[in-house]
Amino acid sequence: MPNNTPFKTIALIGRTDAPRIGELLALLAKRIQQDGFEVVFEANTARVINLAADDNLTLCPILTLTEIGHRADVAIVLGGDGTMLGVSRQLAPYGTPLIGINHGRLGFITDISISEMQQVIPTMLAGDFAREERALLEARIMRAGAPIYHALAFNDVVVNRSGFSGMVELRVQVNGCFMYEQRSDGLIVATPTGSTAYALSSHGPILHPQLGGIVLVPIAPHALSNRPIVLPDHSEIAIQITSGRDVNVNFDMQSFTALELEDTIEVRRSNHTVPFLHPPTYSYYATLRSKLHWSEPPSYGSNPNVY
Amino acid sequence: MPNNTPFKTIALIGRTDAPRIGELLALLAKRIQQDGFEVVFEANTARVINLAADDNLTLCPILTLTEIGHRADVAIVLGGDGTMLGVSRQLAPYGTPLIGINHGRLGFITDISISEMQQVIPTMLAGDFAREERALLEARIMRAGAPIYHALAFNDVVVNRSGFSGMVELRVQVNGCFMYEQRSDGLIVATPTGSTAYALSSHGPILHPQLGGIVLVPIAPHALSNRPIVLPDHSEIAIQITSGRDVNVNFDMQSFTALELEDTIEVRRSNHTVPFLHPPTYSYYATLRSKLHWSEPPSYGSNPNVY
Amino acid sequence: MPNNTPFKTIALIGRTDAPRIGELLALLAKRIQQDGFEVVFEANTARVINLAADDNLTLCPILTLTEIGHRADVAIVLGGDGTMLGVSRQLAPYGTPLIGINHGRLGFITDISISEMQQVIPTMLAGDFAREERALLEARIMRAGAPIYHALAFNDVVVNRSGFSGMVELRVQVNGCFMYEQRSDGLIVATPTGSTAYALSSHGPILHPQLGGIVLVPIAPHALSNRPIVLPDHSEIAIQITSGRDVNVNFDMQSFTALELEDTIEVRRSNHTVPFLHPPTYSYYATLRSKLHWSEPPSYGSNPNVY
Amino acid sequence: MPNNTPFKTIALIGRTDAPRIGELLALLAKRIQQDGFEVVFEANTARVINLAADDNLTLCPILTLTEIGHRADVAIVLGGDGTMLGVSRQLAPYGTPLIGINHGRLGFITDISISEMQQVIPTMLAGDFAREERALLEARIMRAGAPIYHALAFNDVVVNRSGFSGMVELRVQVNGCFMYEQRSDGLIVATPTGSTAYALSSHGPILHPQLGGIVLVPIAPHALSNRPIVLPDHSEIAIQITSGRDVNVNFDMQSFTALELEDTIEVRRSNHTVPFLHPPTYSYYATLRSKLHWSEPPSYGSNPNVY
Repeated sequence: MPNNTPFKTIALIGRTDAPRIGELLALLAKRIQQDGFEVVFEANTARVINLAADDNLTLCPILTLTEIGHRADVAIVLGGDGTMLGVSRQLAPYGTPLIGINHGRLGFITDISISEMQQVIPTMLAGDFAREERALLEARIMRAGAPIYHALAFNDVVVNRSGFSGMVELRVQVNGCFMYEQRSDGLIVATPTGSTAYALSSHGPILHPQLGGIVLVPIAPHALSNRPIVLPDHSEIAIQITSGRDVNVNFDMQSFTALELEDTIEVRRSNHTVPFLHPPTYSYYATLRSKLHWSEPPSYGSNPNVY
Repeated sequence: MPNNTPFKTIALIGRTDAPRIGELLALLAKRIQQDGFEVVFEANTARVINLAADDNLTLCPILTLTEIGHRADVAIVLGGDGTMLGVSRQLAPYGTPLIGINHGRLGFITDISISEMQQVIPTMLAGDFAREERALLEARIMRAGAPIYHALAFNDVVVNRSGFSGMVELRVQVNGCFMYEQRSDGLIVATPTGSTAYALSSHGPILHPQLGGIVLVPIAPHALSNRPIVLPDHSEIAIQITSGRDVNVNFDMQSFTALELEDTIEVRRSNHTVPFLHPPTYSYYATLRSKLHWSEPPSYGSNPNVY
Repeated sequence: MPNNTPFKTIALIGRTDAPRIGELLALLAKRIQQDGFEVVFEANTARVINLAADDNLTLCPILTLTEIGHRADVAIVLGGDGTMLGVSRQLAPYGTPLIGINHGRLGFITDISISEMQQVIPTMLAGDFAREERALLEARIMRAGAPIYHALAFNDVVVNRSGFSGMVELRVQVNGCFMYEQRSDGLIVATPTGSTAYALSSHGPILHPQLGGIVLVPIAPHALSNRPIVLPDHSEIAIQITSGRDVNVNFDMQSFTALELEDTIEVRRSNHTVPFLHPPTYSYYATLRSKLHWSEPPSYGSNPNVY
Repeated sequence: MPNNTPFKTIALIGRTDAPRIGELLALLAKRIQQDGFEVVFEANTARVINLAADDNLTLCPILTLTEIGHRADVAIVLGGDGTMLGVSRQLAPYGTPLIGINHGRLGFITDISISEMQQVIPTMLAGDFAREERALLEARIMRAGAPIYHALAFNDVVVNRSGFSGMVELRVQVNGCFMYEQRSDGLIVATPTGSTAYALSSHGPILHPQLGGIVLVPIAPHALSNRPIVLPDHSEIAIQITSGRDVNVNFDMQSFTALELEDTIEVRRSNHTVPFLHPPTYSYYATLRSKLHWSEPPSYGSNPNVY
């Protein structure tokens, strides 16, 4: 184990239906073990790895995410941004730092490629990394004055109409103050992390993770002046369904709940944050440039200004 | 009956759940009868009118919309834009000209107010009006090579995801040429009339009714460069569902159909058009100004340019 | 003078070319004097008031804005948002709290009407108000490594092309990290206060004043994925002109400077903030609703969903 | 010369400051001569070609664009979209068909690459091509009732404020009917060809060339409901400057004219159209996909919907 490393136990978690995932995780586990770290596997992940093929891997503990939260010093996630979202929400209460490796094209929050993982991960585990805290939202659904559902969201809480109905009408309050009554397809409440996901498609702004804040992005609003608005971290947002049929709410588009008229969704920033560990060369802007094609060189032929 | 009027039989159709609708229609019917026109009532509408209260009204024929299509020279619709949409689609095959009276605030296509109807309608029926043809779309749903549903749309044909699922993937072809594969919440195919309805909320352009054309407006597209595109009238648009769950299509948001993977929605301009009759002073731009608050005078206080 | 008031000396500043301004300011001055406060007039403002007509006003000190900064406990500005912007920048170094009265329709930052000023101002001066700190930007222009101009901005710092040239190319760095190279008509760097001004017209988000943050809004960017991005308060933004002719920069659209190729505009949050005093009933969201017509009741006729 | 070809005389026009342009044009000229066509050179273009190096080229006529308009059956333009715009405007009165070869990355209207020109051009000249007519605008500036300037535009007519002044106020009429009074940075009036240029950056829609129509796209409008509007081909648009300093108008961003208060710019569709010849495999949608990155495959990692 390297001197100065803050870590001892490393959890490995993978998207189990990704191609070659077992093989890749086994390779990574062995590399980490070589450096003297203890490796533990998430239980579903362990099933896709041929642990019997290697004596060292056979001995690795197999844990639930909750056990990983209690025991691991860092969790390495191999998958896509979606996998990372799910793990983030579940490990949030434990403050376990996360490292994301992307199985395909690099994501917004899975910023290490498979081809470089065998070089980059050992360096990071040795203590050379950039640490960043990302905010989460917590939401609860109130019906007739009582909470009926509670969830965390890492990207966004989205209230929207079903595909089989017309517009919804939402009454929005912030810290008890009436903000507006909005007719639309729905409303996205997003973290800075979520600002580059669904909210961006609905014309929301990009929020730098260190800014904090919570952005409200209306989806296809009837009033053309219903623009995205970014609120401070301490905002308590209450969204009441005042009209519409078949309205629902989802959290990171991974869990969905049907709503009834007069239901209120209360959203605030969670007390938890999720620590992300990046390679030391990590640049948030480089990720934006790559994902949004900002680095695209200007094309010679499209400049109408030169004859 | 005035000289030179092109009309003889006038149909009255109302939004039956609107307040005072029976009373208002009776007043209008009597005024029209005075000028010597034959008045006929749509059957549902007739139920909310106290026909027994007036000898002249008792004798008015009560007809289905189909019978109105065959027999009336003009149909007067008292309701909102939604009522007008439904009547437009149903009378489209007969080419019956329509006059729209709005029960509340003026609409985009119901441009006569109740307070002025007793003056304006007689003038129009006497032959003093502006006539305008509005386009319709016809759509059919193809499943496994066979048509399973057919509908007209006056505003738009909208393919969209359910509120309980993630993005859809749509493969769009125009006149047999591949246009794009789009990941989004859905796609709006709108007429010029529909361009100021749902399409406008999704950042589509306004299309002048005399321009014609069909506009494709993506809803929350994943690719930020998926912009609205306006196609020529003769375009045959085929939208295939290549990925996504619980996708559906609706026509003017008034009829909804669930779709399956690989289903294709074919949309083209209908051979029918709907003639709208406007008061002679009608201005399309005045309607836009009023509905979109374009006439709002610049506010004194918000000009940051004067000290 | 009321008990408990934190104020003793009140400055009056007006937009000198507004109608009836002298008369209105004299009325307000007398009302304030009655409550025992010392009234001082800004020098340009004093010229439009008939001070000789009233013995009490004759004795009021006439001061420059700098002297007001040193001596007044609060400054009342009668004009529009533009007037308020100019005064805010000039008084920012002194931390003088500002109250804004709007001469015409209420503004975003001048939220008291003339008709209510005689009731509201005495209450506020007696100590019943809501205080809010608004951020400012400070910018300097670097040419060949040396600063050539320095300015504060309360709304925004805007780099843009002249109307007689094509796109500009801007290289943007944040805290020394390369963000992007952008081809566009220009770039708006705005405070939360400025987010509802020019930035909003260029599709920027609304930033709540308590959020803080600095928003970068591209103007007509060539790359469709160049979206607005909100950065943390501590960001140091450097914008270099890498291509383009006749480029310039302005501060709150009130001072303009021509730029040369390779010039860099450095923008950061100022250490100063401007305290605004609002009536105790002030609501930021109410201002948004009023200015952006959010309170517009849904129109009966435009709902296409009801037949 | 191939049988069945409609052409006899082929003009070659190049962007004279592009690298290797003389060499490339000489190669192309020789290839065309081999097939029996007469080659003529545009005068400025001829200067960058070493004509003396080849006996056949020495004899080619050297003509002005006007002479080319009268004498050539087709003009081949080697440059970028900007070069093509300029040539299009100048040859428009003669109806000369144009073929565009792009010196760099393919453009919207220069759709043949240098690497394929030696194969594609002979095929097209032999008669195998797709012909398409593109619309032009004609504009004139009226001052005190008299025309002071007249110009054609292939992409757009743009009225905009200078970088050294605030918003302009424009009064827009269409066919003599008042449309709106707009406060903004300016207004773009674009053809379908221009709809994918500057207008797209200002949130305008894409117009299919066969649709026709003229789109008005406001630039950073003060009223958030001032959306792009597409007008029919026969529209006569009059834009009057009612307020603002240092306003100007440009045509394809290639010629600029200063305006005065009360000046009116009248824009209508030109009677001329420009015939474009494309390779037989040309697809308008393929060009859009390529230029707007629509063909970008969905990235594995960014789908937040799969765990």
